[in-house]
Amino acid sequence: MKKIKIDKNSAFLYPMPMVLVGSVVEGKANFMAVGWVSRVNFKPPLFAVALGPHHTNKGIDENREFSINIPDVSLIEKTDYCGLVSGNKTDKSKIFNVFYGELSKAPLIEECPVCISFSLHETVKLPFNSLYIGEPKEVFTEEKYMTDNIPDIKKIKPFTLTMPDNHYWSVGENLGRAWNIGKSLR
Amino acid sequence: MKKIKIDKNSAFLYPMPMVLVGSVVEGKANFMAVGWVSRVNFKPPLFAVALGPHHTNKGIDENREFSINIPDVSLIEKTDYCGLVSGNKTDKSKIFNVFYGELSKAPLIEECPVCISFSLHETVKLPFNSLYIGEPKEVFTEEKYMTDNIPDIKKIKPFTLTMPDNHYWSVGENLGRAWNIGKSLR
Repeated sequence: MKKIKIDKNSAFLYPMPMVLVGSVVEGKANFMAVGWVSRVNFKPPLFAVALGPHHTNKGIDENREFSINIPDVSLIEKTDYCGLVSGNKTDKSKIFNVFYGELSKAPLIEECPVCISFSLHETVKLPFNSLYIGEPKEVFTEEKYMTDNIPDIKKIKPFTLTMPDNHYWSVGENLGRAWNIGKSLR
Repeated sequence: MKKIKIDKNSAFLYPMPMVLVGSVVEGKANFMAVGWVSRVNFKPPLFAVALGPHHTNKGIDENREFSINIPDVSLIEKTDYCGLVSGNKTDKSKIFNVFYGELSKAPLIEECPVCISFSLHETVKLPFNSLYIGEPKEVFTEEKYMTDNIPDIKKIKPFTLTMPDNHYWSVGENLGRAWNIGKSLR
């Protein structure tokens, strides 16, 4: 076996989905780029977003509402920009066309193929990050991103992140059906 | 705006990284296929894995150790198989070549390009899933998966999952450097 050990601080997932997390801070919509995010519960659907101490957190802590917006590859520079500058110093409310559903403190991005508003379920304080666990209240998309009434990743064209090399990646080819292609091994 | 609302139970991320989570249950290595997983803390590095009520959980609850193994596309059928059958009825300890590092209850998969052993940091009980938050103890890879001493996703060749359409996807093209390509908008 040729296994070698590497620095455990360099352990990441390959790859991570890139999203824009939104909140309203001091009356303004604010967005940050996040790759540490996952669905975490079946019913009700819950998602977890792990945020360091950022400007965005103030809005989530105060309003108990936030959003997850899935950008497509055409938004890659704007998404990256949201990860480069803090809402503390830079007004990010005009980068995108913002709209709201029922939740007035969960800013949604019109340009993003999938936009989800969340009410906060609970916050888990970790040593450095806050893990915000939210329940989707509304999920917005457009007909053009759907196939057979389901969001279609080839139409959504999201992108992913790798660390610590810090690169973005497109989605590649369809490799087969999940909960299916392993049946041959039964 | 042409936004439409869709079922909030159908809200997922696009795409989700696929991993094999390992634990030792009743003396045997057991693995399950998981797409609900994320890095969640900077220092110390922490990862969260959201598991429904599965056989795997028994091992994590009892031993407070588990593993995350990142399979490559050549392991897609075996990975899918691990998601199709429960360790409660099927012995999955012989599907892969298993090895162990310092943690005797965190089974690692020799065939996987990246293998991480974890000690359990805390368990967050959600309404349906258990969110296991673990701290990496050892990270194993091989020289052939590295470029400039960093794991290289184009050499690792992982795959991702979409739900609710249930398909696996390869990683596509490099789209640019993170925390960099947005600088043009400053």
